[in-house]
Amino acid sequence: MNIDFSHIADLFGTPTYVYDASEIRKRIRMVCSVFKGHEFSILFALKANSNSALLRLMAEEGVGADVVSSGELVAAKRAGMKPVLWNGNGKTVQDKKFFVKQGFDILSLDSVEELEMWHDSDLVKLLRVNPNIDARTHPHISTGMKHHKFGVAVEEIHKVADKIDGLHVHIGSQITSVEPYRAAYTQLVEEIKKHNFKTLDLGGGWGIDYNGESLDIDQMRSVINTVFSGFSGRLIVELGRFIAGPAGSLLTRVVKVKKGEKTFIVTDAGMNNLIRPALYDAFHRIRVLEPVGPASLCDVVGPLCETGDKLGSNRYLELPAEGSLLLVEDTGAYGFSMASNYNGMPLPAEVMWEDNSPRLIRRRQTIEEMYSNVILD
Amino acid sequence: MNIDFSHIADLFGTPTYVYDASEIRKRIRMVCSVFKGHEFSILFALKANSNSALLRLMAEEGVGADVVSSGELVAAKRAGMKPVLWNGNGKTVQDKKFFVKQGFDILSLDSVEELEMWHDSDLVKLLRVNPNIDARTHPHISTGMKHHKFGVAVEEIHKVADKIDGLHVHIGSQITSVEPYRAAYTQLVEEIKKHNFKTLDLGGGWGIDYNGESLDIDQMRSVINTVFSGFSGRLIVELGRFIAGPAGSLLTRVVKVKKGEKTFIVTDAGMNNLIRPALYDAFHRIRVLEPVGPASLCDVVGPLCETGDKLGSNRYLELPAEGSLLLVEDTGAYGFSMASNYNGMPLPAEVMWEDNSPRLIRRRQTIEEMYSNVILD
Repeated sequence: MNIDFSHIADLFGTPTYVYDASEIRKRIRMVCSVFKGHEFSILFALKANSNSALLRLMAEEGVGADVVSSGELVAAKRAGMKPVLWNGNGKTVQDKKFFVKQGFDILSLDSVEELEMWHDSDLVKLLRVNPNIDARTHPHISTGMKHHKFGVAVEEIHKVADKIDGLHVHIGSQITSVEPYRAAYTQLVEEIKKHNFKTLDLGGGWGIDYNGESLDIDQMRSVINTVFSGFSGRLIVELGRFIAGPAGSLLTRVVKVKKGEKTFIVTDAGMNNLIRPALYDAFHRIRVLEPVGPASLCDVVGPLCETGDKLGSNRYLELPAEGSLLLVEDTGAYGFSMASNYNGMPLPAEVMWEDNSPRLIRRRQTIEEMYSNVILD
Repeated sequence: MNIDFSHIADLFGTPTYVYDASEIRKRIRMVCSVFKGHEFSILFALKANSNSALLRLMAEEGVGADVVSSGELVAAKRAGMKPVLWNGNGKTVQDKKFFVKQGFDILSLDSVEELEMWHDSDLVKLLRVNPNIDARTHPHISTGMKHHKFGVAVEEIHKVADKIDGLHVHIGSQITSVEPYRAAYTQLVEEIKKHNFKTLDLGGGWGIDYNGESLDIDQMRSVINTVFSGFSGRLIVELGRFIAGPAGSLLTRVVKVKKGEKTFIVTDAGMNNLIRPALYDAFHRIRVLEPVGPASLCDVVGPLCETGDKLGSNRYLELPAEGSLLLVEDTGAYGFSMASNYNGMPLPAEVMWEDNSPRLIRRRQTIEEMYSNVILD
């Protein structure tokens, strides 16, 4: 895990997302340990990161894919992930054709009506249910309340119980207490037994340690063992952030250190690369790789013309020199996958660190590529 | 302005951004009317929209460019925009080389130190000052307070007054009252007279009518005439949203109408196409083009696996049929320019409506293109 970030910056420039392969493998094995003794599948939620080189590494560890679009299906297939589960509340006609043609394994139905077009298929069919559990996380990433757009009420299960293979539940993201899970799973295990379902997709949302708090894995193991002691079917878990988040860092170069009432550290990475601080007010640890000055109260901001373009606010950081390197940590999930060309910025590079050496897994976008679809005349 | 959206959807698919050329021209002329009698330049802020076909139309109307990156400089040059002003708080070494090579006209200096490398050049040099005015807009897009990352305090002007040509001020975005402008400009006109500057860049931020409130153009004209009655130099205005915002709509198809305690209209456009509702809690009018049912309380949401993936909440809308079309209005600015591939979604198409016919100005991205920089082996 002694990644040579300076070497990576020299080779591939900045900003660049850097992923630690060994950390990803370690975290997948951690998830396996939670389900030991049960029949289970781990699916990686591609919305967190859809770089096929990263996904292939997961496939080698036996991880399948949780996808929501034709685009994600392509990335999962390219990486050799198996099984593939198709999730989503807005499956279009074109997507349906594409998925049938490409093939997949498990379908999560967002409504009872959706079953109509699939009931002849030999897919494993799960009905997404909405247990009305408050996961007490950020409102944008909480998904299990009745007023949310996903799934159907538990009372609707009976309408299609004889035509489906199991249930799917996902109560939110970045959840750091096991109690909402215990509540949701306890509710669903009754339904499963009642209808003799063979599969339960537990969703994901396991919280990682962005800033001190995270889901306790031992407690999660205990919840699983307690709630599912009498269940002999297959458990599925869908994890994105938990597997990839802590394995990634955004490597960026300091453009300017602007001293004033508050010190601004301006980096070449901005909300175009990492939108989580602006979008969710998310906290990411920031590490000054080559400090030259005493710890000061700083805002770390990007080069974009927008006040919301920040990577971190009110941090006590040892001051870096202009041109030196800085890391925004725990950005392996929902980092690159949410990146944009805002302010005319090409997409960053992605690098995998494996066996003590860096491997470019995504070339930095060029300005030409950014505009390649524009038709001027 | 009778755009045939159904024809556009048939020709180019959905989701697609559609821009009305005549509306853009009209709005540019509206801005001209505010500055009549003064020497002035209108610059378009490319961060709002950097499609060169759209920019070329503006160039035809005499509009120059406000750019913040090498990427935006390329788009502006391609469109033939003149003059070009380079703005920004994080100008990198690579950018500086690129800008010198490509050529530009006006430089906004974000700090006094920045002048060092430029003082020999024949660029028009402006110093961005921070008047410490609260524009009372969304905190993310308010930029003129002392605790913001942009510009220097008014007290610093004297340090470089003999080496610069003028000042630059930008107090924020989507401002609907002229009073913050009057306050900022009244403060700066004194500095201009004191130092005998020839150029003042007034910034932009003129608020458009997303939901009833907008900047009053007549009042703005009155502010300009009053504050600058004794100033014979050049005024510059930088506008993005004001020119392009109301000229664009996001055309999307309804994937599903999901009735429950609340009705969810699921569209094929999501926060990947338009992030403003999720990022700023922004309001955009939504128009159901082919209503088939009575007005109901609806959330209009995208197909992404995220609760924040919404286009509008709690709207009374006449219900559309599945497969029919819907418009998210006033999305010509900060729509496409902030779009991402989140959830594996290719970037949408862009179409210009001019002389009663549609012209594709950006092809829809393909899945292949989305992954073209991934290196798998």
